[in-house]
Amino acid sequence: MPVYSISHVENVRICVVMVGLPARGKSLIAQKIVRYLSWLSIKAKCFNVGSYRRNLAGDRPVDASFFDPKNKDGLEVRQEAVNSAIRDMMSWFMDENGVVGILDATNSTRQRREQILRLCRENGIEPMFLESWCDDQELILQNIADVKTTSPDYTNRNSELATDDFLKRIAFYEQGYETMDKDVDNSLTFIKLVNVNSQIILNRIESYLESRIVYYVMNLHIKPRSIWLSRHGESQYNLTGQIGGDADLSERGMRYAKRLPELVLKSLGEENKHTNLTVWTSTMKRTQQTASFLPYKKKLQWKALDELDAGECDGMTYEEIEQKFPEDFKARDDNKYEYRYRGGESYRDIVIRLEPIIMELERQENILIITHQAVLRCLYAYFMNVPQEESPWMSIPLHTLIKLEPRAYLTLVTSIKADIPAVSTYKEKGTSQLGETETMTSKSRDIIRNSKDLA
Amino acid sequence: MPVYSISHVENVRICVVMVGLPARGKSLIAQKIVRYLSWLSIKAKCFNVGSYRRNLAGDRPVDASFFDPKNKDGLEVRQEAVNSAIRDMMSWFMDENGVVGILDATNSTRQRREQILRLCRENGIEPMFLESWCDDQELILQNIADVKTTSPDYTNRNSELATDDFLKRIAFYEQGYETMDKDVDNSLTFIKLVNVNSQIILNRIESYLESRIVYYVMNLHIKPRSIWLSRHGESQYNLTGQIGGDADLSERGMRYAKRLPELVLKSLGEENKHTNLTVWTSTMKRTQQTASFLPYKKKLQWKALDELDAGECDGMTYEEIEQKFPEDFKARDDNKYEYRYRGGESYRDIVIRLEPIIMELERQENILIITHQAVLRCLYAYFMNVPQEESPWMSIPLHTLIKLEPRAYLTLVTSIKADIPAVSTYKEKGTSQLGETETMTSKSRDIIRNSKDLA
Repeated sequence: MPVYSISHVENVRICVVMVGLPARGKSLIAQKIVRYLSWLSIKAKCFNVGSYRRNLAGDRPVDASFFDPKNKDGLEVRQEAVNSAIRDMMSWFMDENGVVGILDATNSTRQRREQILRLCRENGIEPMFLESWCDDQELILQNIADVKTTSPDYTNRNSELATDDFLKRIAFYEQGYETMDKDVDNSLTFIKLVNVNSQIILNRIESYLESRIVYYVMNLHIKPRSIWLSRHGESQYNLTGQIGGDADLSERGMRYAKRLPELVLKSLGEENKHTNLTVWTSTMKRTQQTASFLPYKKKLQWKALDELDAGECDGMTYEEIEQKFPEDFKARDDNKYEYRYRGGESYRDIVIRLEPIIMELERQENILIITHQAVLRCLYAYFMNVPQEESPWMSIPLHTLIKLEPRAYLTLVTSIKADIPAVSTYKEKGTSQLGETETMTSKSRDIIRNSKDLA
Repeated sequence: MPVYSISHVENVRICVVMVGLPARGKSLIAQKIVRYLSWLSIKAKCFNVGSYRRNLAGDRPVDASFFDPKNKDGLEVRQEAVNSAIRDMMSWFMDENGVVGILDATNSTRQRREQILRLCRENGIEPMFLESWCDDQELILQNIADVKTTSPDYTNRNSELATDDFLKRIAFYEQGYETMDKDVDNSLTFIKLVNVNSQIILNRIESYLESRIVYYVMNLHIKPRSIWLSRHGESQYNLTGQIGGDADLSERGMRYAKRLPELVLKSLGEENKHTNLTVWTSTMKRTQQTASFLPYKKKLQWKALDELDAGECDGMTYEEIEQKFPEDFKARDDNKYEYRYRGGESYRDIVIRLEPIIMELERQENILIITHQAVLRCLYAYFMNVPQEESPWMSIPLHTLIKLEPRAYLTLVTSIKADIPAVSTYKEKGTSQLGETETMTSKSRDIIRNSKDLA
């Protein structure tokens, strides 16, 4: 019996066609949209034409001259790359029930865009153009610096030469570039972002899914910032192995709360020690007690950060649940993401209620979130692109501060362990036993590995 | 201990300055924003310069010549009206802690807008301009028809003459009208809506609250549609006076479910009987059983439509709650909107989780929602502008279908009672007793009165 979130109201398939010169942050936006939609269980995939072009061109080094409109060979390879990417995208829509495909390329001429438009219309896909337009030189140079460090085109190349070459490549694209125009392109569905989002033009945004993508993109910013995540300190319920409830911290949990300010300072480093954080907690005592020694003035409580509601199982141990509801216990192990406790919630339910939190996190700068195991798993899954079948099984131990630093194409993760023991609340699949006292060794590495995978 | 919803993150005050010729739907947009924000507990108020002008001009009939830029007397009165409205708005920001004030007037020249901008900046208020620009003649004539039937300027006037006069008034405004320009007004925060929202230009939208207003306005449409609301049929728990749970319908509840398709048809009338509705229910059995005989194909379940979570009181009767938690019982009666059940929810919590539902309702056309008492009260409060201190006490009986028809400046309400008895689930303040079997007489009139109040 499917439960509908805000994401399942329509039966629409969208092709987001990126538009813009090189180094305008197109791939970054495209990847963020894919990550956001996937997290919301909306099947999304990015088709990067540059990767297709590199596959076709083989190992030949590619410099700016390849992008000269007068370079016939270059043109041919580039056209073939676009064709392959579009072909694959269409197969993905048809054979794999894709919902939002993103064609990540410059798509800088009306002719090219009309070709894509036609193909979309023939296949019953809604085209939505998303242009990133930018004339802020500082932003462009920053983007070039990011691209150079990540693009396979510039692996092992001298940094200055690479910048120079990249600027030439941009100049070639500029020759034929036609920006989306609010009058000329009036019949198309498009979003035009001017200098990140200092100005946004929206044209014929009609479906719900389009409006969600617009709202998400509107809220992105590129200022550097960090996000800190921590579970509450060990609670009285953790000691007895009970789930849910609204218990106080244990003596060791209180020690973690007192240590937390020091861990945060350590993660900031000497030069940033005066950075002002905002602290978000749930409405439950154990997260507020954990936050109580932090010196930051702005502390907000969010109901949306409350722990997964275990419904009728609230206050029980896993053993008691296994005994009282053996079928439910097994069903949860079989599909932990979808399983909803009787009268309570599933991981999917948490993701739905966390969506506004994620939107707000995208808007904000430095935020420290103190929340609960299941909620933290969902937040972490968003930032680190952890698939749904894995996220409910991630080990995120007590008494550990996690710092996330979103960068252009990856998120850096640092885990800082407080040297204060705590029980393990990690339950392996197929058992009702909790793990040994966690020592933040292999388990914590799980988290860090995830971050490297993304990179 | 305040709990933060998405609405309380910042400490910002905004003056939304409407811009646009007469008959561009400015007042409608302004009033909807106020209703939406008020429902989210964000203090908002609209200052309509037309009302100030009418107060100043007294009973003198006003025709188009009053708006002739060469009419010195007219100009003077109009300037005075704007000044008074701004003065009152600033006092409201300062003395009553207003958060979003809307200045509803044409504000059609840059000079006027600069005057307002200056005043806002002097008072630490963020100005956000919201222009409704329209060249779709059909839309304009439709708007004029709406204005004529509601504007005090045209009370008891011949309809054709009124249209004629109104078109002249618009022509006078057109003489000096300066639209918001994406280049000239590049330094201002503004939203420009072109032909409702077929194109939208957003410039320097920065704060969270601004982005919420933008997203709400983006999602509004003006197609005629209706929304139907019903509680589930009488449940087994209703019979025993228990709250919460996930009980089946009673025999009478099932009779209501079987009758519901007929009630819906009746509400549609003969000419619209083939209208296709979408049915939304909660995830609970009693709402799904109530929907089970409806002939519409599209039925969605929403967790966000589940009943208020009574936490530890789930499954209890009010008498049991009064006995077991006498202080809580009293606290809830004292402030029913804010009271949160131990381990459960408050009305405020429901409003927060209903916000995406409201946004989706604004986007959709004909929707029939089958939900629960507290949730229905909150939805109804949004559409009918019922204040928070009243909404948790509204009587919404079982076995009654409510049809809402949003119009330009009011929402029409029709209640259709199924002739199937049900227990009352209405608890008066200060007692743990439920009412007599409800007969849908005085109680149902409460609802209808609310609708007239709004008109």
